[in-house]
Amino acid sequence: MNRILQLFMLLLPLAISAQIDKIEPPFWWSGMNHSKLQIMVYGDEIARYTPEVKNAVITGITKTENPNYVFITVDTEGLDPGTYNIDFKKGKRTVFTHAYELKKRTPGSNIRKGFDASDVIYLLMPDRFANGNPANDSHPELTEKVNRNFEGGRHGGDIQGIIDHLDHIEALGATAVWSTPLCEDNDKKYSYHTYAQSDVYRIDPRYGTNKDYQRLSEELHKRDMKLLMDYVTNHWGLEHWMIKDLPAYDWIHQFPGYAQTNYRMTTQMDPNASGRDRRYCMDGWFVQSMPDLNQQNPLVLNYLIQNAVWWIEFADLDGFRVDTYSYNDKEAIALWTKAIMDEYPHFNIVGEVWMHDQAQMAYWQKDSKIGAIQNYNSYLPSVMDFTLHDAVTVVFKEKNPTWDKGMIQVYENFVNDFLYPDVNKLLVFAENHDTARINELYPDLKDYKLIMTLIATVRGMPQIYYGSEIGMKGNKSKGDGDIRRDFPGGWANDENNAFTASGRTDLQNEYFDFTSKLFNWRKGAEVIHSGETTQYIPENEVYVFFRHDKDRAVMVIVNNNPAAQTIKLDRFAENLGGFSKGEEVLSGRETGLDSTLGVPAKTSYIIELKK
Amino acid sequence: MNRILQLFMLLLPLAISAQIDKIEPPFWWSGMNHSKLQIMVYGDEIARYTPEVKNAVITGITKTENPNYVFITVDTEGLDPGTYNIDFKKGKRTVFTHAYELKKRTPGSNIRKGFDASDVIYLLMPDRFANGNPANDSHPELTEKVNRNFEGGRHGGDIQGIIDHLDHIEALGATAVWSTPLCEDNDKKYSYHTYAQSDVYRIDPRYGTNKDYQRLSEELHKRDMKLLMDYVTNHWGLEHWMIKDLPAYDWIHQFPGYAQTNYRMTTQMDPNASGRDRRYCMDGWFVQSMPDLNQQNPLVLNYLIQNAVWWIEFADLDGFRVDTYSYNDKEAIALWTKAIMDEYPHFNIVGEVWMHDQAQMAYWQKDSKIGAIQNYNSYLPSVMDFTLHDAVTVVFKEKNPTWDKGMIQVYENFVNDFLYPDVNKLLVFAENHDTARINELYPDLKDYKLIMTLIATVRGMPQIYYGSEIGMKGNKSKGDGDIRRDFPGGWANDENNAFTASGRTDLQNEYFDFTSKLFNWRKGAEVIHSGETTQYIPENEVYVFFRHDKDRAVMVIVNNNPAAQTIKLDRFAENLGGFSKGEEVLSGRETGLDSTLGVPAKTSYIIELKK
Repeated sequence: MNRILQLFMLLLPLAISAQIDKIEPPFWWSGMNHSKLQIMVYGDEIARYTPEVKNAVITGITKTENPNYVFITVDTEGLDPGTYNIDFKKGKRTVFTHAYELKKRTPGSNIRKGFDASDVIYLLMPDRFANGNPANDSHPELTEKVNRNFEGGRHGGDIQGIIDHLDHIEALGATAVWSTPLCEDNDKKYSYHTYAQSDVYRIDPRYGTNKDYQRLSEELHKRDMKLLMDYVTNHWGLEHWMIKDLPAYDWIHQFPGYAQTNYRMTTQMDPNASGRDRRYCMDGWFVQSMPDLNQQNPLVLNYLIQNAVWWIEFADLDGFRVDTYSYNDKEAIALWTKAIMDEYPHFNIVGEVWMHDQAQMAYWQKDSKIGAIQNYNSYLPSVMDFTLHDAVTVVFKEKNPTWDKGMIQVYENFVNDFLYPDVNKLLVFAENHDTARINELYPDLKDYKLIMTLIATVRGMPQIYYGSEIGMKGNKSKGDGDIRRDFPGGWANDENNAFTASGRTDLQNEYFDFTSKLFNWRKGAEVIHSGETTQYIPENEVYVFFRHDKDRAVMVIVNNNPAAQTIKLDRFAENLGGFSKGEEVLSGRETGLDSTLGVPAKTSYIIELKK
Repeated sequence: MNRILQLFMLLLPLAISAQIDKIEPPFWWSGMNHSKLQIMVYGDEIARYTPEVKNAVITGITKTENPNYVFITVDTEGLDPGTYNIDFKKGKRTVFTHAYELKKRTPGSNIRKGFDASDVIYLLMPDRFANGNPANDSHPELTEKVNRNFEGGRHGGDIQGIIDHLDHIEALGATAVWSTPLCEDNDKKYSYHTYAQSDVYRIDPRYGTNKDYQRLSEELHKRDMKLLMDYVTNHWGLEHWMIKDLPAYDWIHQFPGYAQTNYRMTTQMDPNASGRDRRYCMDGWFVQSMPDLNQQNPLVLNYLIQNAVWWIEFADLDGFRVDTYSYNDKEAIALWTKAIMDEYPHFNIVGEVWMHDQAQMAYWQKDSKIGAIQNYNSYLPSVMDFTLHDAVTVVFKEKNPTWDKGMIQVYENFVNDFLYPDVNKLLVFAENHDTARINELYPDLKDYKLIMTLIATVRGMPQIYYGSEIGMKGNKSKGDGDIRRDFPGGWANDENNAFTASGRTDLQNEYFDFTSKLFNWRKGAEVIHSGETTQYIPENEVYVFFRHDKDRAVMVIVNNNPAAQTIKLDRFAENLGGFSKGEEVLSGRETGLDSTLGVPAKTSYIIELKK
């Protein structure tokens, strides 16, 4: 051995670690129900080595046409927490070694309870909510720099900003936070929405660190609040490091390369749909910057399952919101969903199924009888009540209510409740980060109150959208940026700080106080969380329904009429029977139940019935 | 015995028959699958007598609180055709006798085949179609007299008028006739629509006799055409003889007396509906002149079943259209339907389920998976595709087609086909006697052609409406009378006779010739009757779909764009494969299938593909 070779051998341990550029998941946990773990190792020509683990069983090694990847499947059953050395060998020689960690799982992790109808979910966009750490507004590794003057740019909001304002969120009566995605998105422009992710194991440094995300979760849990992660299974960003060196040609859907989806999600179930339309819907890319993941490739599917499970364990999550759920391959997304729910049977996942027909939406909920017509079961516990959203966006400005226009549209949303396997697991909302803002559609506080009364009292899990609680506006037709404005006070030098009562205008305080009172009342109103519904055909634009169980009942009256109305109570005898009086929960006023009840114009009452 | 008594005894046989005012069914048939026959006998204090039949078994005698009725149940199993004397006794004495006839059943009656997707149904209103017998325009027993000057009055059309113009109907390619009701309606006004019937065992004398109705059936069958009866289970007219002397208080729904239905049929399935709303929907009266029958009373239900069966046997029917199907008691109407279908397993019944949501419509079709969610099965073979109707009435005048407006609405009607147990049994139509007239909505022949092309080629059973084949207009907003105008030429002194080519204007002939060519082609196009459908997302307002089976395929192109379009054929490769050319069926023109196809503005092509 000459001296040069000797020197080289001495340097070897250093050289070895340099062989691996990425290893994902970066670590795992012992004691998972699903014990098979597939570790993806990425490095230059890594596939030339044979991996071995001395104290664990490798059950499979998968290579693709790209020699820079190798997928090592290890059975973790019975393995204790600790470090396991993966030796990468050539022949009998270990060329380098990676110490892989199995962490100790938090006890009870598998029986964690997801969000449900007792929760109120506060949806925020982290870049636009509050800038808690101005030092991370830009980051040297990432292309797009902060620019608060550009509506579609990064404004600097971050995880610290959310943590700093949990008091505000909690004061509203919200019990859960859904933040739009936080993983790294290195898109050149519009990365603030963060749906074009470039590394799904890393929180975008402009939002904070993985540790910060854990801390957000801890802070929420201290308050008995929940954290939902916004998960994207359908696509990654063009800047994702794997997209730049694809593990396999079919890791993404190729036409080759880009073709746009036709967005016609009905092709997922239409028995008459052409194969071509179906393919373009599911396999086409959402936009040019978001390659569509091919979950029919089992490596992709497993990667996505493990990544999701990793975040649940790592960040102690209480739920997922899944983006563009119905654009995924239908069978594959069901496998993804089932895998997660099998690991966490009491978890909750709500899928974005943006359709306009209840049968089509119900199709996607777990154990759907509609899905079953085509032998389909998504295993998805929750879908979003988009048809309620559709109704809410039009009825309160209806000038000519008729047979099928006006409050009847809200009523009609619930007639098809029988199509859903579980209406209590529907997410109910008036708006989100992709829709028109409710206060822009309805600039009058009166309408906001009517709408929020509905959202707070109908069956399902209410979701509210940041900013509306202070009357924030924003015009969708001006672009998405306008419905995602910065929360005033989220930035140090903001003119007014709407996070505090004194920083809010009188009108903003009216919005805030109403919202806070309403949802804080809802927190303790169990009959709203789990009661039955009885609804009455609206008359004169007055919609009346009851939420009730064996002992309790709440009467909700939504008067959308521009004139005061007097309602005769005998019509509701079947729900009023057994009760002697009522208390309107927002005003505290008592009311009799004998003959009639006057309701002012554009006003709602929530009346707790008393024996 | 004194002489006066002796004289009385001699007169007795005469006096006896006077005891019975009505006996229904007036006769029956031997050899029915359902052998139990319940004979209703009506007469002054008839319930005081005990009925007996010597050569048959009475299995039940039912009396109600009205002594003028008695219901005698006889088991006809094994009874030969013939006359059976029903003795009405007091103690051991037979006071009077009624000779009841069991007729011989036509062989094969039970396996009669109902209308199906190979048929084209011609819907007409008999009072407005043609006056074949001016002698019966008014009738001494019936209140409303002929008055052709009143749009809502009786115009004199009749069964003979239909028979006289079967050539016209057949020439159109229609294979079945659905006439709106023909049974006696003695309402004081608006009796021409005949949905407020006063005797359901008697053809209204102003239309003809029961014999005439039999003759219409025979004439149709001679032409290998079918007859559908318009049956009303939900209500009778206030002038119905039984309503004037109710067999039981609960023969009809009482509030007491009249209360109007709320028309909200969704309460039939809405799990949240209040009991009150549900009751008012189903039990409320359709209008004040139409008492709502209570089919939960088994006597009523059985009366309606037997009456329906009676007409099938008597008039050799090929199907029913059932009025206001979804206003009936849901369970009772299922029993009614099942009873008929059990007696005639290959019969067809189409129910008027006028709803606007496919899940809600599919709910009502036999073996519906949607109905099954609520353990409901209507046993109704056919429902009407009202959502297709809804789409057709708007898309062809859409000025600003968008994501969800324009031809996409027609396309979207079919995406939910999987909700229906049998799409081939959907009645497809652009209009009927209760809707806007298609030629009023779309005065341009071009639009008529587009619409009829759709109606003739999509899955299901097409129904066309009298008069449209000559471009007849009529404005629903002016009242129902205007969409039910007299067919020109149906009355002896009409200015022009549109039943003949020479009597039609050039434009009327264009309408007629197109309709005739289209539906006569459809008659032989089996792939349209039973083939699968593959549809493509409309582009530039061009909707393309294929009907196909193992060997055959038809390509339908509906260009609703006001400009000519060139369509690239490679998009349809999956349906064009295996075919070398096509023949447009209306023009006879051949076309290649290689690259593109030009379609003129507002034009449709029906292309039979050839190997």
